Amino acid sequence: MAARALDELIQQLGKLPGLGPRSARRVALHLLKQRQTLLPRLAAALGQAAHEVRQCAVCGNLDDADPCRICTDPERDPSQICVVEEVDDLWALERSALFKGRYHVLGGRLSALDGLGPDDLGIDRLLQRAVRERTTEIILATSATVDGQTTAHYLADRLAPSGVAVTRLAHGVPVGGELNYLDDGTLGAALRARRPIREPTSGHA
Amino acid sequence: MAARALDELIQQLGKLPGLGPRSARRVALHLLKQRQTLLPRLAAALGQAAHEVRQCAVCGNLDDADPCRICTDPERDPSQICVVEEVDDLWALERSALFKGRYHVLGGRLSALDGLGPDDLGIDRLLQRAVRERTTEIILATSATVDGQTTAHYLADRLAPSGVAVTRLAHGVPVGGELNYLDDGTLGAALRARRPIREPTSGHA
Repeated sequence: MAARALDELIQQLGKLPGLGPRSARRVALHLLKQRQTLLPRLAAALGQAAHEVRQCAVCGNLDDADPCRICTDPERDPSQICVVEEVDDLWALERSALFKGRYHVLGGRLSALDGLGPDDLGIDRLLQRAVRERTTEIILATSATVDGQTTAHYLADRLAPSGVAVTRLAHGVPVGGELNYLDDGTLGAALRARRPIREPTSGHA
Repeated sequence: MAARALDELIQQLGKLPGLGPRSARRVALHLLKQRQTLLPRLAAALGQAAHEVRQCAVCGNLDDADPCRICTDPERDPSQICVVEEVDDLWALERSALFKGRYHVLGGRLSALDGLGPDDLGIDRLLQRAVRERTTEIILATSATVDGQTTAHYLADRLAPSGVAVTRLAHGVPVGGELNYLDDGTLGAALRARRPIREPTSGHA
């Protein structure tokens, strides 16, 4: 019906996450309506990203430097490594500016569906690095889904012999969350991990 | 924080309709994870579309031929011109395969917000064409929104002196629609335009 080049563009756009056939058509039309401005800028950005952005061989982050700027930043504490599933999890933590250690990006999670297996998680690379950088704590920040928790448990088992302390993010009521909208799993986790309102000045925090 | 090339890609993706900052980040990561396959194919499709797809000078459709294949198709009836707002409205009508005439794509609708004025709708071009092609009917298929209906009324006024019959799509209950989910405007239009269940065999259909 439409031009072949247009069909091809719609088909490629439809492969992007979150875009169905209808939104792919909408995006393609929008791009062609702005073919002097938006379209060439997007094409250039794609080319430049393909050319310049690389994966950090140390942590798996995406940057235009390899090793990435987080791995080479002397201000960041090499004694803590936070293990995340994807680069956007790393971005979320960086936006919070709360974590000053370094990262290990798994590139996914153990999943029968996505086909990522234990060999794909770079655990040997993580272990070698923990020894090399004298890491004292590995924080597992995989997502709180079934696959994410399976991955965390598997990693904890594999990391145990190394002697490095392995922790995970706390589960509980999200700040601002209302109890009657929370699922039972979260409520149960929050209840089991309850803490005294006045923290003891010393001891287990 | 991230690489400059990556930031630029996320920013350009975020300008596409329906993509916010979060989905732009997700799409950018997805593209970079598939930089050997998806990314170059999308970049190539963008380049090819920019190069090959052009706007039909007769009707405003997008095609790799100018005039487009609908305008040059001898099977299509030049006596009917259907006026639509955008190329995707044309696509919707073509998918239904119910209309065998030709089109006039306005490229938008009269709108104070979008800044499209009467001069941008190509009405003179439409009128010259109606004379040249001996058009007997112009069907206004603008959307049933306030702006769309304003555009239709304006077009009807401008087309009236030409003597060509000007019609518009019927308003009413969508097929499959339930009355108690319909808005009052649609119900009122459907009621005002009610028709006898058994159509007279001749006369106004």
